[in-house]
Amino acid sequence: MALEPTKVVLLAGGVGGARMAEGLARALPKGALTVIANVGDDEEFYGLRVCPDIDTLLYTLSDRIDRSQGWGVADDAVKALDVLRDLGAPTWMKLGDADFGLHIWRSWQLVQGKNLSDITAEAAERFSALATILPATDDRLRTKLLTDEGWMDFQAWFVGKRCAPSVGELRYEGADLAKPSARALQAIAEADLIVVAPSNPLLSIEPILAVTGLRAAVASATAPCIGISPLIGGKAVKGPLARLLDDLDIDATSHAVARRYGSLLDAFVVDSGDAADALALEEDGLKVLATDILMGGPEGAERLAREVLAYASEKLSKREPGLR
Amino acid sequence: MALEPTKVVLLAGGVGGARMAEGLARALPKGALTVIANVGDDEEFYGLRVCPDIDTLLYTLSDRIDRSQGWGVADDAVKALDVLRDLGAPTWMKLGDADFGLHIWRSWQLVQGKNLSDITAEAAERFSALATILPATDDRLRTKLLTDEGWMDFQAWFVGKRCAPSVGELRYEGADLAKPSARALQAIAEADLIVVAPSNPLLSIEPILAVTGLRAAVASATAPCIGISPLIGGKAVKGPLARLLDDLDIDATSHAVARRYGSLLDAFVVDSGDAADALALEEDGLKVLATDILMGGPEGAERLAREVLAYASEKLSKREPGLR
Repeated sequence: MALEPTKVVLLAGGVGGARMAEGLARALPKGALTVIANVGDDEEFYGLRVCPDIDTLLYTLSDRIDRSQGWGVADDAVKALDVLRDLGAPTWMKLGDADFGLHIWRSWQLVQGKNLSDITAEAAERFSALATILPATDDRLRTKLLTDEGWMDFQAWFVGKRCAPSVGELRYEGADLAKPSARALQAIAEADLIVVAPSNPLLSIEPILAVTGLRAAVASATAPCIGISPLIGGKAVKGPLARLLDDLDIDATSHAVARRYGSLLDAFVVDSGDAADALALEEDGLKVLATDILMGGPEGAERLAREVLAYASEKLSKREPGLR
Repeated sequence: MALEPTKVVLLAGGVGGARMAEGLARALPKGALTVIANVGDDEEFYGLRVCPDIDTLLYTLSDRIDRSQGWGVADDAVKALDVLRDLGAPTWMKLGDADFGLHIWRSWQLVQGKNLSDITAEAAERFSALATILPATDDRLRTKLLTDEGWMDFQAWFVGKRCAPSVGELRYEGADLAKPSARALQAIAEADLIVVAPSNPLLSIEPILAVTGLRAAVASATAPCIGISPLIGGKAVKGPLARLLDDLDIDATSHAVARRYGSLLDAFVVDSGDAADALALEEDGLKVLATDILMGGPEGAERLAREVLAYASEKLSKREPGLR
């Protein structure tokens, strides 16, 4: 029975996730894609709520993104940040002026009692983004890293320290108390296909799945689930993944990444060059699509998205409801 | 006994007050001037505290001001405001990006429990402003206007409606509960001279004096008090004063303005052309300096400030403590 994905859910982090989202949005009919975003990297700056992964998704899917760096708004300036620096505030987190517009609006909406799901979905709509964007949870969840300099917030480690301190442990603080976004749960339940973006499994995907009940919702969905490897030849295209895997003594292979998602996956997409991973995954009982997974720009992302969707249509089918 | 003003307090509103402050700061030794600012025009935008008069003072005294319009930061942009507009927020209050930097910082400091006096004084110091700047009160005080369209906030009337609705009544909401800034009270008590800027008496000076205990503090200070008329030939140099006086059936004369300040004043400065006002004020028992009170730019403001200071040194002396 061929799958006709008209409702697709993507679990995604920031830069790589946003690129995959853009590819899928271009390949799918309008309104078909819902992205469920990681909020583990969220942080308050000057009392304003900044959601780096949601922001990158919003900017990418509304073509506001600074494509040369993959995050932030194109042609943005830092007049506000310069004033904050003059006033003695710490300014290691590079927040642009247009960027501040979004953070101010979001914080204002939160203070008025709206939840992050409604706020994020409204921002995506107002920005005419190519997909619905939702946080994994409206509750507080923060990725903390135990480094050789002690426990650190993600942004402090990633931006503030440029990933220099080595990492011994990760914790998704608040995950046990966080409930999944109701709208995210609904999207998962109604989906024809669930895609796990080639985002950092430890810093982007697992904080989503750590939200109490969210992993179970994916597991019990009737939609098949296909993941895309973030590694090519054991190396990450961008970001601190390879480094983090090394710190945490995890194999830097597509096989090892897929195993972390365990029984959630029906299929996994690996790079054509990673034949050993493909073989190992098939031995684990997973369906495997081996292809060129380097997205490059939006066209490359669309090409990969079309391959993934075609593969899903041909090889995957709806599952029986019930926990995997 | 000649007065040697080494500690001068200026009561001031926004644009005209800031110009007078700049003139005095240029004429006085460094550290001699403390400006006590009106907060009746303050308002929250998107959850951020905006203090238009304090901001204009900060920007003017740190040479950041957009001199062509008299408010806002020179060469500022509106990237944040454009995003807020895209997100459906009302954007009639023109807040620039550098401007937002200050509002974000101030709001963040307030949330941390600091009072507006300490925040404002710190901002002035961090900006290397030519004077100490303090709000009249740390408490909530808002100027409300009863117009032919009902009660309105000041900014909604002034910026939002461009002063179009006619005004029947003014109210300084919260003035009865507001306590004067402790630092402002100290500055008044220690001053050698108190100057009332040529600001709008109804919208800038009276909301300062309406703070419970502040008028009494000026009245009981040992420093003599000299005011400068905001009117030349019955016309205001800038802003909605003449219009407002007309609406409220108050004579548009320097004499009528000085009478509103009553016994607080020892002397008043009027324009050379307003001889009838000078005469009437002298008949009221006030000392009068008649000179060219049009400030124009910073040089003109400094010229007027030097004349006022010289006049005060020559003609005014310390007062016996006790209420006037």
